[in-house]
Amino acid sequence: MSRAPPDVVFIGKKPLMAYATAVMMHFNSGSKQLTVKARGQSISHAVDVVEVVRNRFFQGKLVIKEVRIGTELLGEGEDQRNVSTIEIVVTRND
Amino acid sequence: MSRAPPDVVFIGKKPLMAYATAVMMHFNSGSKQLTVKARGQSISHAVDVVEVVRNRFFQGKLVIKEVRIGTELLGEGEDQRNVSTIEIVVTRND
Repeated sequence: MSRAPPDVVFIGKKPLMAYATAVMMHFNSGSKQLTVKARGQSISHAVDVVEVVRNRFFQGKLVIKEVRIGTELLGEGEDQRNVSTIEIVVTRND
Repeated sequence: MSRAPPDVVFIGKKPLMAYATAVMMHFNSGSKQLTVKARGQSISHAVDVVEVVRNRFFQGKLVIKEVRIGTELLGEGEDQRNVSTIEIVVTRND
């Protein structure tokens, strides 16, 4: 099993602050870029996480470099379905 | 009261196909660009609408030109709160 690259945070159903903390720790460790990813209903949550970190904890220092949206095929057989995705690339510029 | 510009579709709590139809009608009327906007929990719904129209009804003809995320202050007094926003700019290239 391959490890996910360390510059990606996947947003799921945990409370917002759990992810916000992960994003903050990433940038406080010296990293300059992070990609926040989410699928389905968690897409709104991913935007909340990025916006809270940007506005409340890193005012003006974090920049949205790119936002990509797309579709992935999830599940197998009759359970197969399309799910929307988002990838938000955030960079630190200080 | 000013009218919203006709090249914007606001995504709320209606079923996906209501919005998908509005987006399709917009492009079928000859328009080349449309901005899909949403706030809060409807952000995921907005991505679904764009992806369904793009993949199921306009295969390859619609391009995501830009995706912007942001924060708006909603409500007044003690009811005031931040809400995340998304704007997805879609263009037709045929």
